[in-house]
Amino acid sequence: MQEIPYKIYLEENEMPTQWYNVRADMKKKPAPILHPGTLQPVTVNDLAPIFCEELAKQELDDTTPYIEIPEEIRNFYRMYRPSPLVRAYCLEEKLQTPAHIYYKFEGNNTSGSHKLNSAIAQAYYAKKQGLKGVTTETGAGQWGTALSMACSYFGLDCQVYMVKCSYEQKPFRREVMRTYGAKVTPSPSMNTNVGRKINAEFPGTTGSLGCAISEAVEAATTQEGYRYVLGSVLAQVLLHQSVIGLETHTALKKYGIKADTIIGCAGGGSNLGGLISPFVGEMLRGEADYEIIAVEPASCPSLTRGKYAYDFCDTGKVCPLAKMYTLGSSFIPSANHAGGLRYHGMSSIVSELYDQGLIKARSVEQTSVFEAATTFARVEGILPAPESSHAIKVAIDEALKCKETGEAKNIVFGLTGTGYFDMYAYQAYNDGTMSDYVPTDAEIEKYLSSLPTV
Amino acid sequence: MQEIPYKIYLEENEMPTQWYNVRADMKKKPAPILHPGTLQPVTVNDLAPIFCEELAKQELDDTTPYIEIPEEIRNFYRMYRPSPLVRAYCLEEKLQTPAHIYYKFEGNNTSGSHKLNSAIAQAYYAKKQGLKGVTTETGAGQWGTALSMACSYFGLDCQVYMVKCSYEQKPFRREVMRTYGAKVTPSPSMNTNVGRKINAEFPGTTGSLGCAISEAVEAATTQEGYRYVLGSVLAQVLLHQSVIGLETHTALKKYGIKADTIIGCAGGGSNLGGLISPFVGEMLRGEADYEIIAVEPASCPSLTRGKYAYDFCDTGKVCPLAKMYTLGSSFIPSANHAGGLRYHGMSSIVSELYDQGLIKARSVEQTSVFEAATTFARVEGILPAPESSHAIKVAIDEALKCKETGEAKNIVFGLTGTGYFDMYAYQAYNDGTMSDYVPTDAEIEKYLSSLPTV
Repeated sequence: MQEIPYKIYLEENEMPTQWYNVRADMKKKPAPILHPGTLQPVTVNDLAPIFCEELAKQELDDTTPYIEIPEEIRNFYRMYRPSPLVRAYCLEEKLQTPAHIYYKFEGNNTSGSHKLNSAIAQAYYAKKQGLKGVTTETGAGQWGTALSMACSYFGLDCQVYMVKCSYEQKPFRREVMRTYGAKVTPSPSMNTNVGRKINAEFPGTTGSLGCAISEAVEAATTQEGYRYVLGSVLAQVLLHQSVIGLETHTALKKYGIKADTIIGCAGGGSNLGGLISPFVGEMLRGEADYEIIAVEPASCPSLTRGKYAYDFCDTGKVCPLAKMYTLGSSFIPSANHAGGLRYHGMSSIVSELYDQGLIKARSVEQTSVFEAATTFARVEGILPAPESSHAIKVAIDEALKCKETGEAKNIVFGLTGTGYFDMYAYQAYNDGTMSDYVPTDAEIEKYLSSLPTV
Repeated sequence: MQEIPYKIYLEENEMPTQWYNVRADMKKKPAPILHPGTLQPVTVNDLAPIFCEELAKQELDDTTPYIEIPEEIRNFYRMYRPSPLVRAYCLEEKLQTPAHIYYKFEGNNTSGSHKLNSAIAQAYYAKKQGLKGVTTETGAGQWGTALSMACSYFGLDCQVYMVKCSYEQKPFRREVMRTYGAKVTPSPSMNTNVGRKINAEFPGTTGSLGCAISEAVEAATTQEGYRYVLGSVLAQVLLHQSVIGLETHTALKKYGIKADTIIGCAGGGSNLGGLISPFVGEMLRGEADYEIIAVEPASCPSLTRGKYAYDFCDTGKVCPLAKMYTLGSSFIPSANHAGGLRYHGMSSIVSELYDQGLIKARSVEQTSVFEAATTFARVEGILPAPESSHAIKVAIDEALKCKETGEAKNIVFGLTGTGYFDMYAYQAYNDGTMSDYVPTDAEIEKYLSSLPTV
């Protein structure tokens, strides 16, 4: 057999030309999303005032298995894709494990993460529809950065509502967005009714993601030629992110490697869903079997401690409801939670796959995550994002189990991005001031008790 | 002919196994470096108390054309190399130029620049010599980060003296270094005689690169088992950086592309020297001809306005003297100079090639550099380092000339790194508060008047 290189790069002509829509192969589909007013399944027409039409169609399409990637998007992908599937030789040696560890590295682009895969698709469809621009919210700024880059490429206006405390405390991502021409507004702002109302009610507030979503949605629906876009959770986002899994699948096949365990971090589920889609497809069609592990923070444990129920996708309760594993739409992780993965719910596709037993879930505490991140950085040379490091933590755990059992498992995990804009969190870890937080059962119960009755 | 992909990646087995030492092909060699006490050419024995022995040998070897890259270093290179040679299709389209633009991208690693190519080599030889650790200085932190990564890989202690104002104002690179286990000390410190002296003389000083060098050298020579290492200027560094040029040369050859113009930014000369070495070698051997352009900041114009003379390599005058294009060792660029490329002199190899007329030099002002950087970022998707953006500026200028003349030249430039830790400078540009500074003739004359008499 061919020797496995450190980095497996596909040729450009081996890159996917179609996204894979895993819902098409699911016998039991994810539950439909519901209109927040009528509580009836939404239609493309319901979604059209908020979302681009083509994206609304993709959101509701659970039967077409493969959807063509337009040439313009494929050209953009070629600027930073195919992303490498890396054999973690140095990590294996460090751990002295018989396991073979691979990671799909999505951080080699200026947005620093996989978010760009969907941002460029969403910007493309907005442009194609003849829109002037898009609005969105961003917390730490990973999604906002990706969207800014995508909009800059297609000449679209990009309006980002950035949670005020991030805007002030994390100025670097804000400046990356501005460099790409985006208008970045600290939220709550005085641009929108909802922003003015919140500022009047809570003077000096530093904002929240829920408030920023509400402002972005209002901005999209009150300006001619604008729509709202979202970087995770939605089925359309998982569809676009399937490019991660498809490349991984092709690369493994090219070298005759059969994955045993596939691991991804999970916040809203976009990276995990994209990575595992083609593999889950094989499981659904009875062609292969894999152990799939979703890793979430112990401080925001939607899969491991949440409830599978209909819930609002946003704190402001203006977006549709989805059936998902959720902690309740008012849940906000403790302030000492460092990384992303802070969404209260989980993609309805990932939720349904979890409910069907096709994937497992595990929660990990952040100090152990940064310990794994530091180990990884020192031997593999890449300083990982806190989000991605959740997957690293479990990949290391699994590789150490192999060391005990002597099994030479093939472990594949998603390294979604780099941590260059997360050095405050690393500083806390380096200084020994980072702490862990796990919500009590009573706290979880409190948030879950306010789930809507559907 | 084969279609040129967006990114040309060599196979791992096409990576160089030897560095190329351009001095071997130079009939007129760079002038020897001189001992600061005796003003006689230094010997390996002179250098041995400060530098690792093998590196001292490489420093003085101007006859061996190819030097084996040890396997341990090649294995490390495989974690982030080969680096891609990118065809800038989108930039070409934006400029509507008939020119073909290529860039060798060295930023896809956590150090964010090409500095890692030499850091790993220097760490390897230190380890091989049985040393405990190395010391160095860093300004903005690019070199310090690369060295931290390299030392972490080989289990060496890494002590970095970081200019105090950078230590306080740019905490992120400091944290990356700490994550890789380096001891980062703000300079001037109370650890060294020279640091204590400066702190006593100038209470509250925020330090300078010259002072940090002096502290690092003192730390290396007063601790058992330590040596001092440097990230640019030296011949050994250009030797290691030849890996950039060798990969570029192989990639162009593989696709039958003949470069017409080769452009690199130049501070101390490590990246430029590495990129152009194999091409200059062809010129020296009469096998090919290229137009080679070194680009420097107008605020620190050593090639375009300096003098070709012997000068001290450091402000503290403890290191050997080199014959180079220099502005005088006391020259410090104006405080409004944003990026790196702030060294007062230029690698003696690059200086000699420039003096022989084999390369040209051009100086550019920083506002135009950030304008070029922003254009590049928006179409090519990579947010470039301020240093690298000097090369982008001239590459764009040359491509626009081709637009006028209709020539389809092949323009190749070095994209040394990413700007993720330079967002303060981008912010100044985005806010319109960035200014340009060009020293007057009188200022240049003042600094040059203090050159040593050798």
